[in-house]
Amino acid sequence: MCELSFYNEMIYWGLECSHLDYCCQRRLDDRMSDTYTFYSADEAGDGGEDTRPPAEPPPAAEGRKWLERMRRTFEEPTSSVAAQILATVSILFVIVSMVVLCASTLPEWRGAENRSVEEHSRPVLETPLDVAVTAARPVSMTVVLRIIEAICIGWFTAECIVRFIISKNKCEFVKRPLNIIDLLAITPYYISVLMTVFTGENSQLQRAGVTLRVLRMMRIFWVIKLARHFIGLQTLGLTLKRCYREMVMLLVFICVAMAIFSALSQLLENGLDLGTKNKDFSSIPAACWWVIISMTTVGYGDMCPITVPGRILGGICVVSGIVLLALPITFIYHSFVQCYHEVKFRSARYSRSLSAEFLN
Amino acid sequence: MCELSFYNEMIYWGLECSHLDYCCQRRLDDRMSDTYTFYSADEAGDGGEDTRPPAEPPPAAEGRKWLERMRRTFEEPTSSVAAQILATVSILFVIVSMVVLCASTLPEWRGAENRSVEEHSRPVLETPLDVAVTAARPVSMTVVLRIIEAICIGWFTAECIVRFIISKNKCEFVKRPLNIIDLLAITPYYISVLMTVFTGENSQLQRAGVTLRVLRMMRIFWVIKLARHFIGLQTLGLTLKRCYREMVMLLVFICVAMAIFSALSQLLENGLDLGTKNKDFSSIPAACWWVIISMTTVGYGDMCPITVPGRILGGICVVSGIVLLALPITFIYHSFVQCYHEVKFRSARYSRSLSAEFLN
Amino acid sequence: MCELSFYNEMIYWGLECSHLDYCCQRRLDDRMSDTYTFYSADEAGDGGEDTRPPAEPPPAAEGRKWLERMRRTFEEPTSSVAAQILATVSILFVIVSMVVLCASTLPEWRGAENRSVEEHSRPVLETPLDVAVTAARPVSMTVVLRIIEAICIGWFTAECIVRFIISKNKCEFVKRPLNIIDLLAITPYYISVLMTVFTGENSQLQRAGVTLRVLRMMRIFWVIKLARHFIGLQTLGLTLKRCYREMVMLLVFICVAMAIFSALSQLLENGLDLGTKNKDFSSIPAACWWVIISMTTVGYGDMCPITVPGRILGGICVVSGIVLLALPITFIYHSFVQCYHEVKFRSARYSRSLSAEFLN
Amino acid sequence: MCELSFYNEMIYWGLECSHLDYCCQRRLDDRMSDTYTFYSADEAGDGGEDTRPPAEPPPAAEGRKWLERMRRTFEEPTSSVAAQILATVSILFVIVSMVVLCASTLPEWRGAENRSVEEHSRPVLETPLDVAVTAARPVSMTVVLRIIEAICIGWFTAECIVRFIISKNKCEFVKRPLNIIDLLAITPYYISVLMTVFTGENSQLQRAGVTLRVLRMMRIFWVIKLARHFIGLQTLGLTLKRCYREMVMLLVFICVAMAIFSALSQLLENGLDLGTKNKDFSSIPAACWWVIISMTTVGYGDMCPITVPGRILGGICVVSGIVLLALPITFIYHSFVQCYHEVKFRSARYSRSLSAEFLN
Repeated sequence: MCELSFYNEMIYWGLECSHLDYCCQRRLDDRMSDTYTFYSADEAGDGGEDTRPPAEPPPAAEGRKWLERMRRTFEEPTSSVAAQILATVSILFVIVSMVVLCASTLPEWRGAENRSVEEHSRPVLETPLDVAVTAARPVSMTVVLRIIEAICIGWFTAECIVRFIISKNKCEFVKRPLNIIDLLAITPYYISVLMTVFTGENSQLQRAGVTLRVLRMMRIFWVIKLARHFIGLQTLGLTLKRCYREMVMLLVFICVAMAIFSALSQLLENGLDLGTKNKDFSSIPAACWWVIISMTTVGYGDMCPITVPGRILGGICVVSGIVLLALPITFIYHSFVQCYHEVKFRSARYSRSLSAEFLN
Repeated sequence: MCELSFYNEMIYWGLECSHLDYCCQRRLDDRMSDTYTFYSADEAGDGGEDTRPPAEPPPAAEGRKWLERMRRTFEEPTSSVAAQILATVSILFVIVSMVVLCASTLPEWRGAENRSVEEHSRPVLETPLDVAVTAARPVSMTVVLRIIEAICIGWFTAECIVRFIISKNKCEFVKRPLNIIDLLAITPYYISVLMTVFTGENSQLQRAGVTLRVLRMMRIFWVIKLARHFIGLQTLGLTLKRCYREMVMLLVFICVAMAIFSALSQLLENGLDLGTKNKDFSSIPAACWWVIISMTTVGYGDMCPITVPGRILGGICVVSGIVLLALPITFIYHSFVQCYHEVKFRSARYSRSLSAEFLN
Repeated sequence: MCELSFYNEMIYWGLECSHLDYCCQRRLDDRMSDTYTFYSADEAGDGGEDTRPPAEPPPAAEGRKWLERMRRTFEEPTSSVAAQILATVSILFVIVSMVVLCASTLPEWRGAENRSVEEHSRPVLETPLDVAVTAARPVSMTVVLRIIEAICIGWFTAECIVRFIISKNKCEFVKRPLNIIDLLAITPYYISVLMTVFTGENSQLQRAGVTLRVLRMMRIFWVIKLARHFIGLQTLGLTLKRCYREMVMLLVFICVAMAIFSALSQLLENGLDLGTKNKDFSSIPAACWWVIISMTTVGYGDMCPITVPGRILGGICVVSGIVLLALPITFIYHSFVQCYHEVKFRSARYSRSLSAEFLN
Repeated sequence: MCELSFYNEMIYWGLECSHLDYCCQRRLDDRMSDTYTFYSADEAGDGGEDTRPPAEPPPAAEGRKWLERMRRTFEEPTSSVAAQILATVSILFVIVSMVVLCASTLPEWRGAENRSVEEHSRPVLETPLDVAVTAARPVSMTVVLRIIEAICIGWFTAECIVRFIISKNKCEFVKRPLNIIDLLAITPYYISVLMTVFTGENSQLQRAGVTLRVLRMMRIFWVIKLARHFIGLQTLGLTLKRCYREMVMLLVFICVAMAIFSALSQLLENGLDLGTKNKDFSSIPAACWWVIISMTTVGYGDMCPITVPGRILGGICVVSGIVLLALPITFIYHSFVQCYHEVKFRSARYSRSLSAEFLN
C-alpha cells in the first residue's frame, strides 16, 4: 500500500495519528519521512510562496543567527512570543485601517472635505442645527481619520522595508505574491499624497478626481495582508493557484450558459413581440444580468420574466444553473480539502522542528 | 488494517454490523472493544459534556444505588420508563413555554399591559367594538399567559435543582454547557420579577424598559434545553465545539470578502459618480448588507446594483460567494458525520450495557 | 475483505461489473449470491412495499400460472410487452387527469359553474363581448372536462379493483403504501359525486363548499401513482422511509433555529423600539416567515430587516441556515445513493431472473 | 486488487502518478495498458463523439499522410502549432460573432432597420438631436455589423466544408453531435438571406416576421462550437449523455413536486376563499411559477403567499425543494468527476503518443 495515499485518506476522514495503533503509527512515520523529503523538495521548487522548512541552518556567525531569528519572527507567526506579538499588532493595524476606511464613507463622517461637492445633492435635508453639528464635527473627525491613516501606512511601510532588508534572497522576495500585494496596497497612498501636494488641497482636480477615489479605495487590499496570519486564507490562495483550470471551466460554463439563456430570454420576453413586451429584457446584455442572478439562485426580483414561454425558460435556466455551477465547484472543494491538510501539515511540521531545536 | 478507520468507513457508508459476515463481525468486535476502551478514556478526559459510560458501579449501599438510579433517570432519557416520562414532560414544558412566548407577541394577544404604549400608534384602526373586545379579552389572556409562564419556570427551576442535588460532582456539574444554559435561561425571569416588585407594576420605567424586554426574550434559549433529548442537537453541539477552527475560517472568509466587495461596490455604484448615483450604496457598511445577502444567494432585492460595472462586480461577488462559503462548510459536514456516528455509537453502547445489566 | 462493502463501494463509484477483471468478477459473483440470499430475506421481512423476487414459482395448475402472469403484468412494468403497454396507458391517464385539473383552475376555463360565485368579484372587467364568449365556451368546456375526469376515475378504479382481485395476499395488499394512496386518491371523487347527488347541483352548500374544493384538489395525489413506474420515485420513498430519523433531525434544527432567530429579530426590529419600528416584524410568528425564507436563502424580499442590529442578525441567520440545513441533508444524500443502487439492483435482478426463465 | 478501480480512486483524490512510489507506478502502468486497450475499444464502439487514439497509422502514401496531418490539425487543437493557431482563430470568430449578436440588440445600435417598426413605440423620448445622431450612426453600424456577420458565417462554412472533405468516414462524420450543431448553427443564416432575397428588403413580411428573428437568434448556438476547444464542455456533454437517466429522475421529481405544491398552494391561497384571496395564485399554472422559483431558492418575490397556511406550505415547499433537487444532482456530480478524468486521461494519452511519434 502506498503510504501517501493512505495518509491522505486518513487526514480526509479527520483521523489523527494518535488514533492509530502503535504499530501502524510507527510504520507510517517511517514511510512518511522518506516521502516527505521528496515531496517538500518538489514543493519548494514550484513556487516561492510557501515558507520553506528551514533545512538545518549551518553553524554560522552570531550575526547570521540573529538575522535568522529576526527573519523567523517576521515570517513565522507561531515561532516565538515576539513573533506572535508582532503578528497581533499587524492584524490590529489592518483591522483599524479597514474600520477607518469604512467610517470615512459614512454620510455623517464625510465632512468638510466633500461638503462643497455634495451640497447641491442634499440641500433640503439639513436643518440649521445639522449644519452646525456637521460643520463642527467633521473638522476633528477628518483630522483624526487622517492621522490614523498615516500611522497605519507608516507601520505597513516599516514592516515591508524591514522584511525586505532581512530577507535572504532579495530577488525571490520581490516575486512572492504576498509581497507584491503589500507593495500594491501601500503605493496608492503615496501617489495620492503626491497628487495632493502637487495639485493643492482645494484644487478642482482633486475634488472630483475619480483617480483619487480609486486610489483611496485600493487600500481595501490591505485586508489580504491577513493571509500571512490565517491558515484559511493561505489555503484559499494555494487552492486558487492549483485550480486555475477548474476556475476557467467555471467561467466558460457561466459564459456559455449566459450567452444561450440571455439570447433566448431576450427573444421570448421582448423580441417576439407577442402581446406583452417586457421592457426589462430590451437587450441581451440586460438579460445577462437576469441570467446570472437566476442561475446562482440569488433572484433579486428587479427583473422577472412575465410571459409563459419566458417563465418556462426561466425554470430551465435556474435548474441548469444549479447543476452547471456546482459541477466545477466539486473539484475546487476536493482541492481545497487537500490544500488545507497540506498547509496544516507543513505548519505543524515546522513548529515541531522548531520546538525540537529549542529542546536541544 | 486498522480497525477504527475501517469501522469509521463502515458507518460512513451506512452499513450495520449485521450486514457483515459472521467471521468479520467477531473479529471486528474483538478489536473494537480494545480500541474503544482507550478511545472513551481519551474522550472522557477532554470535556465534561458527554455522559460517561457508567463503568460498572461498584457494590455499594442502598442509598447510593437509589441515587445512581435517580441520576440516570434525569440524565439518560432512554434508561427507563420513568426517565422517558420525565423527558417527555420536560419537552412538553419547553414547547408550551415557546408557544406562550410566541403568542404573547401577537397583536391580538398583547393587551392591557402594552395598551397605553401602543395607543398612540394605532388610533384609527380600532372601532368601538374592537376596543370592547380587546379590553375584555386581554385581561384574562394576560393572566392565563402569566400563570402558564410561572408554572413552566417553576418546573425548570425544580428540575435544575434536583439535577444539581443528585449530581456526583458538583464542581463538574456547574461547568457543563447544558447546565450553564439552564441557569442563563432561568435567571432572567427572576430578575424581571424582582425588577417589577421594586419598581411597581405600572411605573414608567417598566413600560418602556428595554431591559425588561430583552430579559423576557432570553426565555427563547429554553429551547436549547431540548439538546438533552435529541441526538441531532447534541451532535450539532459537539460539531461546533470541534470545528471552531473551521468556524473561524468561515468567519474570516466572509469578513475579507465583505470588506473587498463592499468597498468596490460602493466605489462603482456611488463613489465614482458617473451619471447614475445609487443611493442604496451610499456607504461601505450599507454595501456590506448587500454583499452578505448576495454572497449567500438570498437576494432580497431591497438593494440592487444598477450600473454596468456594478452588475459585473455583483456577478463576480455572487459566484465567489458560493465558492467561498461552501469551502469551509465541507469540513463542518465531514466533522458532523463523524460526530453523529460517535454520539449514536456512545448512546447505543450505553443502552446495551444497561439492558445487559437488567438481564443479569 | 467483505464482499458487500466492496460491492457497495464499487456501485458508489459507478463501476459496472463488466469493468472488473474476469477473475475478480467470478469471485464477486460467488460471494454476492450467498450474501444476497440473506440480504433479500431480511429486506422482504421489513416491509411489503418492495416487489419481492418471485422465488421460483412451484409447478401449479394452468389457472394459477395465468394469475401469476397477470399479476406480473400489473405489478412489474418491465416484465412483458403487455405490462409495458399497461404501464404507458396508466401514465398517460395520470398525465391527462393532471392536465385537466390544472386547466380547470384557469380563469378562462372556469365557466358557468363558478360564474354566480365570482360575479361579484370581477364585474367591471368584463365587456359584453367577453360575457358572450365565456358564456358560450365554458358550457362545452366544463362538460368535456367532466367527461375526461369520469373516464380517468373509471380507469383508476378498474385498475385498482383488478389489482386487488389478482393479488396473492389480500391483507398484505391493503397495507402497501402505494395501494393506500390509490384508495385515498379515488375515494374523494365518489364522495363529491355523492354530495352533489344528495345536495343538488345548484344548492348553496355546494357552491361555496370548502369541503368540495378540498376533495377536488385531493386528485393531485394521483400523481404519486407514477411511483409504480419510476425508479426515482421508488428510491425517494425508500429513502424517506429509512431516513425518518434524519428528517426529524432536520425538522428539529429548523424549529430550534426558527424559534431563536424569530424571537431575536422581532426583538431587534420591533420590540426594542429604537427609533425605527419595522411593522413587518410585529410578532414572532410573522418573523418566523422571514426566518425560514432567509435560512433557506430564498429571500423573497417581502420582509427585510432595516435596522443595523437586525441586519447583523440577518447575516448570522442566513449563514447558520446554510450550515444547519445542509448538515442533515448530507445523510439523506448518502442514504439516497445507497437506496438507488439497491432499487436498481433489485429491479435488474428481477428482470434477469425473468429473462432466464424465458430462456428455459 | 483491481487496477481500474484503484486508478479511479487515485484520480478522484487528485493524486498524480508521480506521487506514487516507483514500484507502484510501474506495476500500475503495466496493468493500465492492458485495461485501457479493452476500455478504449469499448468506448470507440459506443459513439463517434470522442476522438479515437490514432492506433499506429500504417505505412501509407504521402497523400494519405498529408490528409492525416490535416485531419489532426482540424480535429485535435493540441496536436501542432498550426492546429493551435486554427483553434485560436476559430474561438476568436465565435467570440466576435457573439459580441455582434449582443450588440445588435442594444437600443442604441438598433438603427435604421427597425426604425419604422419602433417609431410608434417611443415617439416622445427622442429629441431632434437624438434623431439626428441615431439617423447618422446606425447606417454605418448596421453595415459594419452585417459585414462582420458575413465574414464569420463565411469562416464557419469554410471550416465545416474542409472538415467534411478531409474526414475519413463521411457517414460517421455527419452523425457526430458537434457537426450536427455546426450545421444547425449555419443554415439559419442562409435561410434568412434567402427569405430576404425572395421577399425584398423592405417588405412587410420581413419586418414583423417572427420567423426571421428566431432564425437570427439561433446563431447563439455557435457558442457550442467552443466545445471542440474546452475539455470542460466536452466533459459536460459526456456527462449529459451518460446521465440521461438521472436527468429524467430530476425532471420527474420537479414535475411531481410542482404538481402537488402548486395545486395545494392555489387551494390554500386562492381556492378556499378564506378572507384574503391572493390574486397571484389564481390558477395552478400560475402557482407553478411560484413553486419552481421557491423550490430552487431563487425567490424573485413577484409572487408571495400571504395567508398563514400558505406560508407554512411555502416553508415545506422550499425545504423539500432543497432536498429533492439535490438528490439526483449528487449522481450527476459523481458522473461528472469520472467523465472529467476520462476526458483528461484520453487527451493526455493522445498528446503523449503524438510526442512519442515526433521523437521517432
